[in-house]
Amino acid sequence: MPTNQQILLRRRPDGEPTADCFELHDAPIPTPGPGEVLLRHEFLSLDPYMRGRMSAAKSYAAPVELGAVMEGQCVGRVEQSNDPAFKPGDRAVGGYGWQQWSAVPAARLHKLDPAISHSSLALGLLGMPGLTAYLGMTDIGQPKPGETVVVSAATGAVGSVAGQLAKLGAARAIGIAGGPEKCRFATEQLGFDACLDHRQDLAPQLDAACPAGIDVYFENVGGAVQRAVFPRLADFARMIMCGMVAEYNLTEPLPGPNLMAAVRKRLRIQGLIVSDQWNRLAEWHARALPLLNEGKLRYREDIVEGLPRAPEAFLGLLRGQNFGKLVVRI
Amino acid sequence: MPTNQQILLRRRPDGEPTADCFELHDAPIPTPGPGEVLLRHEFLSLDPYMRGRMSAAKSYAAPVELGAVMEGQCVGRVEQSNDPAFKPGDRAVGGYGWQQWSAVPAARLHKLDPAISHSSLALGLLGMPGLTAYLGMTDIGQPKPGETVVVSAATGAVGSVAGQLAKLGAARAIGIAGGPEKCRFATEQLGFDACLDHRQDLAPQLDAACPAGIDVYFENVGGAVQRAVFPRLADFARMIMCGMVAEYNLTEPLPGPNLMAAVRKRLRIQGLIVSDQWNRLAEWHARALPLLNEGKLRYREDIVEGLPRAPEAFLGLLRGQNFGKLVVRI
Repeated sequence: MPTNQQILLRRRPDGEPTADCFELHDAPIPTPGPGEVLLRHEFLSLDPYMRGRMSAAKSYAAPVELGAVMEGQCVGRVEQSNDPAFKPGDRAVGGYGWQQWSAVPAARLHKLDPAISHSSLALGLLGMPGLTAYLGMTDIGQPKPGETVVVSAATGAVGSVAGQLAKLGAARAIGIAGGPEKCRFATEQLGFDACLDHRQDLAPQLDAACPAGIDVYFENVGGAVQRAVFPRLADFARMIMCGMVAEYNLTEPLPGPNLMAAVRKRLRIQGLIVSDQWNRLAEWHARALPLLNEGKLRYREDIVEGLPRAPEAFLGLLRGQNFGKLVVRI
Repeated sequence: MPTNQQILLRRRPDGEPTADCFELHDAPIPTPGPGEVLLRHEFLSLDPYMRGRMSAAKSYAAPVELGAVMEGQCVGRVEQSNDPAFKPGDRAVGGYGWQQWSAVPAARLHKLDPAISHSSLALGLLGMPGLTAYLGMTDIGQPKPGETVVVSAATGAVGSVAGQLAKLGAARAIGIAGGPEKCRFATEQLGFDACLDHRQDLAPQLDAACPAGIDVYFENVGGAVQRAVFPRLADFARMIMCGMVAEYNLTEPLPGPNLMAAVRKRLRIQGLIVSDQWNRLAEWHARALPLLNEGKLRYREDIVEGLPRAPEAFLGLLRGQNFGKLVVRI
């Protein structure tokens, strides 16, 4: 009898999560209730925000309960539908959790645009990370032509889109990534003007790459990278606060920058949570799909095979070991 | 023979400035050059930003040179004019420096609106501090009716206007000030809903006054006040970074708040320097003058008699000893 393979949260991490925080579990395939749709998952998205859901600390979203399925977004095919908007065979995004199947209210599912060739794109460039990059650059960063935009985690799911949007807006895009291979990818494939390796001393690299300072900083990592970037922000710089993955495993928060610089330089430091603005996904698709078709937006996926490997892949994501948007093929 | 009494910067402070950083000096009354106007100062404005000008550290404005007249803005009467826009007897703001007279280019002087009853108002509510409060609340704070606005240095030149603007916009205004007398003034005269004494433990006072968190924080002081306010900012809060006077005398900057809160709470932390936007003074006057005439904007001045007392008054300002907008009657 077929089952629904799941990954449960078994214990909360103290600092860096370990494999034993997770538990592989077989559950029955769910039965969709009235108005619900049964989705067979094809891909699960793994994203840094999930680290926050593993902890009980108060945040913008509730933590995953101990013993519950890990939170995550999935794309898949409709197997059964109790809502007229979906029929079996439809591709849809909005499946829930680190598992093979989910039964979700039709209102929380989105049918995939037929223009989307690979369904995993709905979890990356055309999904949550792509929309995050778009909203950050459009609403907060607003780079002007010729301005210098620095993007951390430059080859990641969000950073790669942010950097390309900067270039499309005629700004200079400087990436920060871990290691020469990622840096090469950032410049050769994504079109960054330069990419700095944070495993080397960042300060002199930033000074060389940004002689007039940094006008926009897309913050994905925090930690030592933030400490190197912050003092180099130019007057009127915008700092898009998207995430600080390098600090997610710390049990005590690091001190931040003294905010007098925000006065002196008239900085704008602003945070962003994509789930506040899902209603702008269509706006992003309208912009991204033509660019994608013309080859003006590129992406790279890091595909892990099989749900049992999700925990290990997620732990690697927190250490920056993925290379491109991390998804699990279910 | 009449002279021009001046206060010069004699040495740069290391930490808290002392009286011997200043030197009283007699110079000849300046002769206005072509296109210049000779102004006899009536009032000198003393403001916290001047502390920055005493140090050689790089900032948004050049430091005062050692041996030069301390920087400051004055209002006074035209004594002699080499520009057709001004004639003797005109009241004008834009005189320069801690001194009795200045000869300044006509383009840098502004004739006082005849609607301004007391010329010192052009240095306070209707001048730099008032415009600062207006720009901060209008462009960054944008409080909505019912939101909670916290203003530090609530009885000061900027804070008193910021709080009243919050109330005029139907927000709740919570002041922070030093001591019961200032707090009473804030609530009874300025209309703050409550005013918290930072000489007592602020945390429980803030919890009681802002049970749903803080939507807008007008930051004038930094230090311990900032550390108490920051964790109590609500989702989507705006933090108007105007100044951090409690930290101006520190030789090493304090650590700031960890910026992950900016992501989690979607904060907007934004700095403001009024001199970027002098062109909006008329906009502020159009808003403020009717309110002032209707008694809907109140102010308090702390007037010190005579230029020789300016250094002592300025040192007191840095310690929060002034009560209202600090000006020196020349």
